[in-house]
Amino acid sequence: MIIMPVVFIEPYGIRVVAKKGQTLLEVLRTASIPIQSLCGGYGACGKDKIIVVRGKEALSPLTSSEKKYLSPEEIAKGYRLSCQARIIDENVVGIFIPEESRVKKTERKVASEGYMKEYELDPLVKKITVIVPQPALDDQRGDFERIRDTVVKITGLKEIRASLEILQELPFKARNNGWKFSAIFWGDELIEIKNAEDTGGIFGVGVDIGTSKIVVHLVDLEKGEIKKVAFAENPQLGFGEDIMTRMTFANANKENLLKLHNLLIEVINDLIGQVTRESGVSPENIYEVVVVGNTAMHHFFLGLPTNFLASSPYVPVIADIVSFNAKDLGLKTNSRAKVTVLPNIAGYVGADAVADAVAVNILEKKDNILLVDIGTNTEIFAGNAEAMVTCSTPSGPALEGAHIIDGMKAVEGAIERVSIDENGNVEYETIGNAKPKGICGSGIIDAIAQLFIRGIIDARGKIVKNLPLNRIVKGTYGWGYVLAWGNETSSGKDIIIWERDISEILLAKAAIYTGISIAIRRRGIGIHDLKEIYIAGSFGYHIDPVNAIIIGLFPDLPVDKIHFVGNTAIAGADLALLSKKAREEAKNIVQRAKYIELTIDPLFQKEFVSALSLPHRELERFPSVAKILQQKR
Amino acid sequence: MIIMPVVFIEPYGIRVVAKKGQTLLEVLRTASIPIQSLCGGYGACGKDKIIVVRGKEALSPLTSSEKKYLSPEEIAKGYRLSCQARIIDENVVGIFIPEESRVKKTERKVASEGYMKEYELDPLVKKITVIVPQPALDDQRGDFERIRDTVVKITGLKEIRASLEILQELPFKARNNGWKFSAIFWGDELIEIKNAEDTGGIFGVGVDIGTSKIVVHLVDLEKGEIKKVAFAENPQLGFGEDIMTRMTFANANKENLLKLHNLLIEVINDLIGQVTRESGVSPENIYEVVVVGNTAMHHFFLGLPTNFLASSPYVPVIADIVSFNAKDLGLKTNSRAKVTVLPNIAGYVGADAVADAVAVNILEKKDNILLVDIGTNTEIFAGNAEAMVTCSTPSGPALEGAHIIDGMKAVEGAIERVSIDENGNVEYETIGNAKPKGICGSGIIDAIAQLFIRGIIDARGKIVKNLPLNRIVKGTYGWGYVLAWGNETSSGKDIIIWERDISEILLAKAAIYTGISIAIRRRGIGIHDLKEIYIAGSFGYHIDPVNAIIIGLFPDLPVDKIHFVGNTAIAGADLALLSKKAREEAKNIVQRAKYIELTIDPLFQKEFVSALSLPHRELERFPSVAKILQQKR
Repeated sequence: MIIMPVVFIEPYGIRVVAKKGQTLLEVLRTASIPIQSLCGGYGACGKDKIIVVRGKEALSPLTSSEKKYLSPEEIAKGYRLSCQARIIDENVVGIFIPEESRVKKTERKVASEGYMKEYELDPLVKKITVIVPQPALDDQRGDFERIRDTVVKITGLKEIRASLEILQELPFKARNNGWKFSAIFWGDELIEIKNAEDTGGIFGVGVDIGTSKIVVHLVDLEKGEIKKVAFAENPQLGFGEDIMTRMTFANANKENLLKLHNLLIEVINDLIGQVTRESGVSPENIYEVVVVGNTAMHHFFLGLPTNFLASSPYVPVIADIVSFNAKDLGLKTNSRAKVTVLPNIAGYVGADAVADAVAVNILEKKDNILLVDIGTNTEIFAGNAEAMVTCSTPSGPALEGAHIIDGMKAVEGAIERVSIDENGNVEYETIGNAKPKGICGSGIIDAIAQLFIRGIIDARGKIVKNLPLNRIVKGTYGWGYVLAWGNETSSGKDIIIWERDISEILLAKAAIYTGISIAIRRRGIGIHDLKEIYIAGSFGYHIDPVNAIIIGLFPDLPVDKIHFVGNTAIAGADLALLSKKAREEAKNIVQRAKYIELTIDPLFQKEFVSALSLPHRELERFPSVAKILQQKR
Repeated sequence: MIIMPVVFIEPYGIRVVAKKGQTLLEVLRTASIPIQSLCGGYGACGKDKIIVVRGKEALSPLTSSEKKYLSPEEIAKGYRLSCQARIIDENVVGIFIPEESRVKKTERKVASEGYMKEYELDPLVKKITVIVPQPALDDQRGDFERIRDTVVKITGLKEIRASLEILQELPFKARNNGWKFSAIFWGDELIEIKNAEDTGGIFGVGVDIGTSKIVVHLVDLEKGEIKKVAFAENPQLGFGEDIMTRMTFANANKENLLKLHNLLIEVINDLIGQVTRESGVSPENIYEVVVVGNTAMHHFFLGLPTNFLASSPYVPVIADIVSFNAKDLGLKTNSRAKVTVLPNIAGYVGADAVADAVAVNILEKKDNILLVDIGTNTEIFAGNAEAMVTCSTPSGPALEGAHIIDGMKAVEGAIERVSIDENGNVEYETIGNAKPKGICGSGIIDAIAQLFIRGIIDARGKIVKNLPLNRIVKGTYGWGYVLAWGNETSSGKDIIIWERDISEILLAKAAIYTGISIAIRRRGIGIHDLKEIYIAGSFGYHIDPVNAIIIGLFPDLPVDKIHFVGNTAIAGADLALLSKKAREEAKNIVQRAKYIELTIDPLFQKEFVSALSLPHRELERFPSVAKILQQKR
């Protein structure tokens, strides 16, 4: 019998049989446990820190790289760099992956940036320098025509257009600059004439109107960079947390719709004001605003009635990409700026989802991918450039901490990481390392996954009542499990996860998994045909992927296939500002994506009920979870 | 010696040698004297009345047709129908062509309609009836997209567009009509949705903004007919009679320009209000306004600065055909209506001249034509579809009675027809048969022509002072000729044409003739290559063509080649409303017409000076006038 080294990986409770000579990083990769490693395993980044909790002596000694990146305090606590620590003995090694080494994140409270595919800088707004022949008695062309003739000669444009406003200014601007000036075009429309030496720059604004948050990016269209970011709560929250409540309000009369519309315009203007002030850019230098949002937000932004979006068959007024004058919508930018709203696919797959798909570059994918933008409503794409299926699933707000008794948003004091050991002891981390106030979505997922693998809750999410654990309590809300005792919390009260909280989460994760499962089926592929999984949205960003698989939220695939891409909706909006091609891609995605109305899919009922189990009624769909459960028994 | 019958034709003082058996109409045609004859000489219209003043016995007896069309009083006065009265003897016959039989006219004070070429009814504004499949769970296309898909199927359109305003209304309008409705398009833009049974009609408004008069036509775009006409004085007259004074005012500051702009918008709105009220058409049913005017009016209408139009090299801001939202210009029509302004050619050949050229169908002419739109500024086209030359000449306001001491506009009491017999006796007609108050343009031309052929003024327009005529007077303004004695006039004062009035007219006619002459030369043709002459404009409408040739205003060609086509500017605007092709023609004319800046043409100086004579310093250019003069000597 050959004895092999074994590595226990916490907080996931995963046991991996390793080989002598492997680094811990290699072991983690074998087990598909994600860990930060910017340099690729050469000890050059110091990001792949792990804590050795057992079997320190079975590992190679500290390297010079570790001495460089680890503080004496860390070394004392057992910290190592996973790429440097090599297994040198057939022993049991226990490691813990600290929060800081898990998934990369930029911004905790709202994912205000997201993954953006590579693109060629080719914005629709362009500045060109023109030198126009001056008028003369033998050349009496109109001012506009002489500019047009010059522009047509030096660009690929066949014609140019201009608004009345620019025509009214043009004669003076052209002459004051001696007929040599910078002409700014939006497509073929001349929207500004400036001194050739003007250094004010050419900017665009990307806007993601979320149901809860609104994110604004000030984008430098010449440099192709995000100059400034700002975000705010969606002021419509006062008219209902969920979209349906707001639509019911808006549909009562035109004034109500206008109220919701104006709230958006005002907050976007405030955010534009903020990013321009903070960056020293004049709003006059903003020439285009690209807006994404779910279909309801799209309609509220444009002042379009949502009456027929709110009830079956849930059709939008318009799905096409549209552009209007920013001025006509009351946006405070250059008065000739345009506002473009990316296209919708259906009532519940909006411009934000299309933007996600653009940002992750779905149209260049030969292999099948899965794209999931988790929110109150979760939008899913499955497929590749050739064929893709999209659907939307009503995942509700529980994953964001709502409808959870001790739930809260991901703000300071929220328990965001939970690990439970074999004895039912709880370790947790809070945002800002503050005293815990409650638990947010990622913490709840961790807790449920950990309770499940430790056998404290069963596959239906019910607490196993006869266990000898003092954290199991019965109270006002039925049975629960204490995550933090009152003496640890800011309020002095226990923070408890209740059976009914678990039910809420199971409903949410079942909705998402059902959407994923049906989308894949309708695309004609299986789970294992997926090459990559993109998890978009500010919530998804914080999920621990291993725990998410354990509860059956994500399909059971190697976690290195899972990419947390953040706010790809705003990234898609930015891409549309920066690249004409991205707009075409958005249109193409709308054309190609086959929309599935989930609730009327014949598979829906059975899939949904099966997905209500932990991880799933058909355990064979989650072999890695099955393996963990086997180890426990 | 063969004795031939001779016919004296008054008021022109023309003597024609005729043949026995000819009708008087045939004689008039030989001499190229225009006379109304709707039926073509078959005694079936009664329009070709003449008065036989001498040699009644040399003519055939009254026919039954004459007994039908002439009243007993007319018969007693010597009236005949020229097509019925046949010369039966070698005698001298004297005839007088009464005003009523001369040139056709519709409206005395302002030519508010003009000749309009034949066209195929194909307006840019079109109403189509669509039946759209209703939304369903298995057909969740957006409202706009399902309408688009239907429209694309039944029309030649590839795409359709819609404003935000129409998108905001569309869901309700579509459903309230059960998805069967009339869709009104302006090109590819959906601008209205109406009940399929709606009978409100589809209307357009044609607008001719003249320096003095503004004419508005309400045009039925389904029936292709002018429903109502209205006109008003240009309210800018308070800021100067001539364009240059108004431009100087406008160029001082933006507020002044805006003032002139607003005056136009207000008066056009008033006129639109008038034509809609009077015809019972709702302004809501007006979907397009097509505007023409000279380049300055074009600019004032659009609020474009005229600063660089007013001084050399006289360039407009824009010459292209342009369309904007009528609402943005403050026009009171349907809120989605468009306003289109036809293209300009140059600073002084504006959209009105282009409209003239469209209306007379210059692009279909194989033979060369001359088109002259007489006004304060006179625009000229010479050529055919293949090649055309255009220019503008500053003819001034004298031809409209301004700057003439006893001059007045063509309103009641104006002397509009003058004939002077061999003895210097004057006969005149006034507008409205009122007591004379002054003399208008057509009367002055008549008077100068008649004074000239009677030898009372010389070729330089100077009065021959030693003639024994008591009408020759010397007074405050130098030498003059009394047209009406004080006891005949409404003021009790003599109405006199002064030498300096004649000088004013000579300057005006020299400017026009020079323009004509150079345009023809630059087109590479001669006077005799002209197949047709179109005289456009409200003034031209009233000119006696024979007298106009005598003074050298029109080139010496058979008068049956001269067509008085009235307000072809408004006709061109109407055509653009009624026919997409007419818009293309307007663009083509701008492309093809070679513009000549007259003042810098090397021929200008000499031509102008020569044209200051009556009829011209080179008398050989006016052989028919030379012949009349020879007869007198």
